Amino acid sequence: EVGWTDLDVRAVDTARILAADAVQKVGNGHPGTAMSLAPVAYLLYQNVMKHDPSDPDWLGRDRFVLSCGHSSLTQYIQLYLNGYGLELSDLAALRTWGSLTPGHPEVHHTTGVELTTGPLGSGLATAVGMAMAQRRQRGLLDPDAAPGTSPFDHHIWVLASDGDIMEGVASEASSLAGHQELGNLTLIYDQNYISIEDDTDISFSEDVAKRYEAYGWNAVTVDWREQESYVENIDALFTALEDSKTSDKPTLVLLRTIIAWPAPTAQDTGASHGSALGADEVAATKKLLGFDPDVNFPDDPEVLAHARLVMDRGQAAHAEWDTAYNTWRDANADRATLLDRLLAKELPDGFADAFPVFDADAKGKATRAASGEVLNALADVMPELWGGSADLAGSNNTTMKGEPSFVPASKSTDMFAGNEFGRTLHFGIRENGMGMILSGIALEGLTRPYGGTFLVFSDYMRPAVRLASIQQLPVVYVWTHDSIGLGEDGPTHQPVEHLAALRAIPGLDVIRPADANETAVAWRTALQIHDHPMALALTRQNVPTWDRTEFASADLTEKGGYVLVDAEGGEPDVILIGTGSEVQLAVHARQQLAEQGVRARVVSMPCREWFDAQDQSYRDDVLPPTVRARVSVEAGVAQGWRELVGDAGRIISLDHFGASADYETLFREFGITAEAVAAAATESI
Amino acid sequence: EVGWTDLDVRAVDTARILAADAVQKVGNGHPGTAMSLAPVAYLLYQNVMKHDPSDPDWLGRDRFVLSCGHSSLTQYIQLYLNGYGLELSDLAALRTWGSLTPGHPEVHHTTGVELTTGPLGSGLATAVGMAMAQRRQRGLLDPDAAPGTSPFDHHIWVLASDGDIMEGVASEASSLAGHQELGNLTLIYDQNYISIEDDTDISFSEDVAKRYEAYGWNAVTVDWREQESYVENIDALFTALEDSKTSDKPTLVLLRTIIAWPAPTAQDTGASHGSALGADEVAATKKLLGFDPDVNFPDDPEVLAHARLVMDRGQAAHAEWDTAYNTWRDANADRATLLDRLLAKELPDGFADAFPVFDADAKGKATRAASGEVLNALADVMPELWGGSADLAGSNNTTMKGEPSFVPASKSTDMFAGNEFGRTLHFGIRENGMGMILSGIALEGLTRPYGGTFLVFSDYMRPAVRLASIQQLPVVYVWTHDSIGLGEDGPTHQPVEHLAALRAIPGLDVIRPADANETAVAWRTALQIHDHPMALALTRQNVPTWDRTEFASADLTEKGGYVLVDAEGGEPDVILIGTGSEVQLAVHARQQLAEQGVRARVVSMPCREWFDAQDQSYRDDVLPPTVRARVSVEAGVAQGWRELVGDAGRIISLDHFGASADYETLFREFGITAEAVAAAATESI
Repeated sequence: EVGWTDLDVRAVDTARILAADAVQKVGNGHPGTAMSLAPVAYLLYQNVMKHDPSDPDWLGRDRFVLSCGHSSLTQYIQLYLNGYGLELSDLAALRTWGSLTPGHPEVHHTTGVELTTGPLGSGLATAVGMAMAQRRQRGLLDPDAAPGTSPFDHHIWVLASDGDIMEGVASEASSLAGHQELGNLTLIYDQNYISIEDDTDISFSEDVAKRYEAYGWNAVTVDWREQESYVENIDALFTALEDSKTSDKPTLVLLRTIIAWPAPTAQDTGASHGSALGADEVAATKKLLGFDPDVNFPDDPEVLAHARLVMDRGQAAHAEWDTAYNTWRDANADRATLLDRLLAKELPDGFADAFPVFDADAKGKATRAASGEVLNALADVMPELWGGSADLAGSNNTTMKGEPSFVPASKSTDMFAGNEFGRTLHFGIRENGMGMILSGIALEGLTRPYGGTFLVFSDYMRPAVRLASIQQLPVVYVWTHDSIGLGEDGPTHQPVEHLAALRAIPGLDVIRPADANETAVAWRTALQIHDHPMALALTRQNVPTWDRTEFASADLTEKGGYVLVDAEGGEPDVILIGTGSEVQLAVHARQQLAEQGVRARVVSMPCREWFDAQDQSYRDDVLPPTVRARVSVEAGVAQGWRELVGDAGRIISLDHFGASADYETLFREFGITAEAVAAAATESI
Repeated sequence: EVGWTDLDVRAVDTARILAADAVQKVGNGHPGTAMSLAPVAYLLYQNVMKHDPSDPDWLGRDRFVLSCGHSSLTQYIQLYLNGYGLELSDLAALRTWGSLTPGHPEVHHTTGVELTTGPLGSGLATAVGMAMAQRRQRGLLDPDAAPGTSPFDHHIWVLASDGDIMEGVASEASSLAGHQELGNLTLIYDQNYISIEDDTDISFSEDVAKRYEAYGWNAVTVDWREQESYVENIDALFTALEDSKTSDKPTLVLLRTIIAWPAPTAQDTGASHGSALGADEVAATKKLLGFDPDVNFPDDPEVLAHARLVMDRGQAAHAEWDTAYNTWRDANADRATLLDRLLAKELPDGFADAFPVFDADAKGKATRAASGEVLNALADVMPELWGGSADLAGSNNTTMKGEPSFVPASKSTDMFAGNEFGRTLHFGIRENGMGMILSGIALEGLTRPYGGTFLVFSDYMRPAVRLASIQQLPVVYVWTHDSIGLGEDGPTHQPVEHLAALRAIPGLDVIRPADANETAVAWRTALQIHDHPMALALTRQNVPTWDRTEFASADLTEKGGYVLVDAEGGEPDVILIGTGSEVQLAVHARQQLAEQGVRARVVSMPCREWFDAQDQSYRDDVLPPTVRARVSVEAGVAQGWRELVGDAGRIISLDHFGASADYETLFREFGITAEAVAAAATESI
C-alpha cells in the first residue's frame, strides 16, 4: 500500500549496511537495532511524518523521538538519507571527538535531532510532554479550528525499545498520556526480545499491549515474526501508523522484530545490541543484501537521489502549510503577535511590573505562598507560562486561580474544571514523569513550563532534571517544603542533602529565597533565562518579610548573593552567610553579636550559581577577602560551603537525617539557631 | 465467614476514632485513610497474618508493609490493639519529638514496623524484595520441603494507596513480581479515588486490575462501593486474602473504599486525606459510631482485651512453628549452623582469605573487572551474598560464574539458566525498582544483596538509596563506568556530579578504589559493615595495578584514605589527593614534580566517609596540617574537595557535562591529566 520501489528497498538495505559499517569502524556502538529498524525509520521519514529537511525548525513539523537513543544510527542515517545535512563522513565519524554523530542523539548539536536521549524511558516520557505542549500551543493560538485543520496541529512519533518500556518513568508518562487522550502521539515499541542481558525473557514477561490498553491507549500489534520466516510487512506497519494519525487516543504500535536483521549469525543475539558485528559478519551481511563486501560506507548516487526526493515532498507540504499559516495570521492578528513574541523568546510588555511587592511583615509569609502569588500575578501577563504539580498543588502553591485545568473536559472534577486546552497541569504522583514532560514542553518551544513537588522528591525526578540541564531547557522546578522546616512528616519527607546534590548538577540554578520579595525577584530573574533549568527551593513555614528600607533591595537577589544588612560601625569582623529560611537566623545572630560588640555583616545567598557568575569585584565587595571570619548557615549538609567560608570559617549545617516533630523543635534540637550562628562567628574570628 | 463479633466491630470503630483523635490532637496528619482502612488492617492483624506480638522478630512471621506510609496510624493503632507495646499515650504523642509514633513508620524505631515508608511506591517495591528474599532464604535453608510446609515460608502483605500505584517504581517492581511469580506477595490496593489534589480522576484513569494482569498477577476486585450505600464486606475481603495465600502468582486485591468513612461530612473528600477533621467532625463521627463525643482516645478494656487475644493465637502458632523449626534443625545440622551464623550477622570462616590478591601490572585491570573476580571468589564462601544488575550484568561484572539465576525455571534463557531458588538477580532495566528490592532483601535479614548499574543511573535509584540510608541497610551498590572514562556513550551516560551528590547522602559510604587490590579490600571492608549501605564506583577502563612492595599496602583502603606513595627525600612540599582512576595521574604528577625538584606525596582517598571516621591523629598523619599545598584530582565536580585541600589548595575537576569520544581524548581535552595536576601543585606551593 505504501508502494515502495526497488530503490526504497535498496535505501533501507543501505541504511543497514551503513549502521554495521559505522560501528565496525569506530569499534564500539549499537548496530543491531539500527539494522532491524532501518525500514521503520525510513518509512517514518519518507512516507509518514510531516517534515521538511530544508527547514528543520519548521513550526508545522512532526516530531521524531528516538527513545532508544543508543540506536542513534537509526536517526543519523535517516538524517543523511533525507538530506538534513549529515553526510557519509559524519557517519564514519560516529562516536568520536567533535563529530556530529555522538553516541546518543543530542539536541542543539545535530540538525534534525529534536531531543537528547539515551537514558531509557526518557525519550518516551519527554514525547508525552511534547504531545501535551502541542495541544496547549494549539489552544493558545488556534483553538477554534477543526481537528487536523490547524497549522499548529502536528504529531509526535516515538521509537522505543524493550528497555524504554521497562523503565518506571515510561509507565508514569504513558499512564498520563492515556489519561490525557493524546491522539497526537504514536509510540512504536520495537519488541525484539533482546536487551543487554540477552533474551528479555530473563526479566520481562508482561503483556505490553494489555498494559497500554489499561492506560487507555489504542494498542495495535504488527508482528513481523509471526510467520515461519521473518517478513518485514511494511504495509501493515504503514496502515497502523496512518490510522494512528486520526486516533482520539495515543496509539501503541507493538512491532515484533528480529534485532540485527538480516545479519546471518548476529541476528537475534544480545551481542548485536551493543557491540560491533565483526568484519566477517559485516561482509557476510553485505553479500546477503547484494552489496560489495569490500566496500565500506556504500554510496550509490541513485539511491541517495531517490531518498532525498523527500525534500521536494517536504517543501510542497511546507508551502501548503505556509498558505494556511498566513491565512491564520491574517485572521488572528493578536495571536500572531503573541506567536511572534514567543518565537523571539521575548517577555511580554509589563512583565517586570507584574510582580507583587510584599510589605514588611515580621510574622511573615512562607516563600511557597509568595511564589503562588507571583504565579497568580503573572497569569494574565504571560499566557505562555503554565504548570502544575505532582499531586501537591495546594502545598506547592502552583495553581493560578481561575485557570482551567489541562485535561479532557470529561475528566473535570469537583475541584478542578478543565478542558483540552487548559493551563493547570495535574501530573499525579509521578515526579520523574513530570520532569520529563516539562522538558518535552520546553522542547516544543513556545511555552514556559513549571512543575512542583516537595524538595525531597527532587530525588525521584533527578534523571529528568539532569537531562533538562544537558539539553539547556528553561524549565522551572518549584520545590517546596525545602528543609526540616516541613516538620511533622519526618525524615522521609525532609530534604537534607538535596540542595548540595542539586547544586552539583552542571547548568542547573538552585535558588533558595529568604523572604517573599526575594521570591518574587527570583521568579523574575528565572523567567528571563532561556537556556537552562532553574529550581526554586521554597519554605513551607512562614519567614519574615524584611523591611527593605532598612535592609538592601530585594532586586539584588538577581546577583545570587548580596549584603542584606551590613555591620554597623565599621568593617565587619565576621560575615554571616545564609540561604532561605536560615537567613533570619543570621540576622538575629548579627544582633546578638552586636550586643557583644562584634560587627557582623549578613549576606543572603539565594543562588550560588548566580553569585558565581558575578565578576570578581562584585564578589569581593560582598565577601571581602580580608574578612576571613565567616559563618554559613543552611539547614542541609555542609558539603560545598567550605568554598565560601574558607579555612577560618564555620559551617552551621545538618549532616544527618531529620525527625518527626514541629519545625521549631527540630531547628532547636538540631542546633540550627541564631545562638549557634553567633557562637560559630565568635569561634571564627 | 471470618465471624467477627460485636467486639471486633467495636475494636474497628475504636481504631477509627483513635485515628481521628490522634490527628486532631497534634493538629496535622492523615486521618482519612486510617479511618477507612481500620477494618482492613484489623482483619490482617487479627485473622490473616501469621504473627506473634510477643516476639516481633519471630523468624516465621509474615511481613506487613504499609506502603501508604502517611497513614501511619493504620499501623500504629493495630500495634496498640494487638499488643506490640504501643499504648494510648503513644498514639496521643503522634508526630511529636521523640515519640514512638512519627509521621511515617520508621523501622528500628517502633516495634512491629518492618520498614520505613512514606515516599510513595517505595513500600510496595520494597515488599517485592522481601518476597524475593523469602524465597531465596527458603532455598538456602530448606529447599526440599513442600510448598507451605517449611518454617521458612511466610507471606508479605502490602497496603497501598492510589499514589503508590501511580509511582513508576511501583510499576517496575510489580512487573518484576509478576515475572518472578511471587505467590508469597499480596497487595491490597486501597482505591478510594482521593489523593491530595482531591478526586484522582483529574490525573488517573487506568484500569489497574487489567494493568496488573498484564504484569502476570492475579487480580481480584472487592468493591465496597458497588452498592447504593457503602458496605464494608469483610467476608469478601477475607476470602480474597485467604485465597491469595496459596496462589502461585502475586495477588492484587483491588479494594474500593470511601476515605474517612464514616465521618459524616469529611468522608470521600481530599481534605480528609491530609488534614485534621476538626473537632466538630470528630465529635459527630463519635456520635455516629456510638462513642461519647466528649471522650478523646476512648479506652474500653473489654475491647482491648478482646483484640489482644491475638497474642494467644500468635503464641500458639509460634509454638507450633517452633516444633517444625526444631525438627528442621535436627534434620539439617549444616543449614542450621549457617542460619545461626546469618542470624548473628557473622562472616564465614575463611572470609578474609577468600579475597584475590592481584599482581602488579602496569597495563592493569578495570576495577569493575577486579570486583567481578572478588564476587566469584566469594561465591562458595559466602552463600548469603547474592545480587545482579539492571540489565548490565556483563558490563557491571556482577555475575558469579556458574551460579543459577533467581527466576522461575520456565523463564530460563539460553544465556541464563535459573530456578526459583537461584542466586543471580536480573532486575531488567528498572534501577529504582532494583534499589528498593535490594532494601527489601536486606530487611528480610538473612542475606546480603548487591546490585549494579552504571554510576550515572544512580540518579534513577536515588530514592531507594536514600531510603536504604535512612533504614541503615547493608546493601552494596555496584556502580561501574564511573566517569568520562566510559568514553563513547557520551554525556547522557557519563557521571560528573554523581560522586558529590552521593557523598551528600548521610549514612552512605561512597567507595572509589584506585586499582584492583583497593577494590578487593573495599569489598572486604564493605561486607564487614552491617548497619548502612555502601556504593562502589568502579572504572570501565583499565587502571594500573600498583606494585604494593613499592607502594603502601592496599589494606589501608579500609582507612578511607592513605599515603599511597610518599615524597622522596624529606617532608612533602605538596600533597596530591586522588580517587579511583585519577590516582594514577597523581602518581605520574609526583614523578614529574620530582624531576623539577618538588617533593610530592600521593594520597589515595577511596572513601571520604571512612577517612572522616578515622581519628584526628591518623588524618593528620596522612594530611599534615603543616602542608598547606594540596591538589585534589577527581573526574567529577569540585564540590566538596575544598574541605580537604583548603584555601591554598587546587582542585582538578570536571564541572561540566562530558562528550562522546574515546576516554583518552576526553581526559586530555578536559584537562584531567598528570600535567594539570603537576601544574596545580606548583601553583599551590
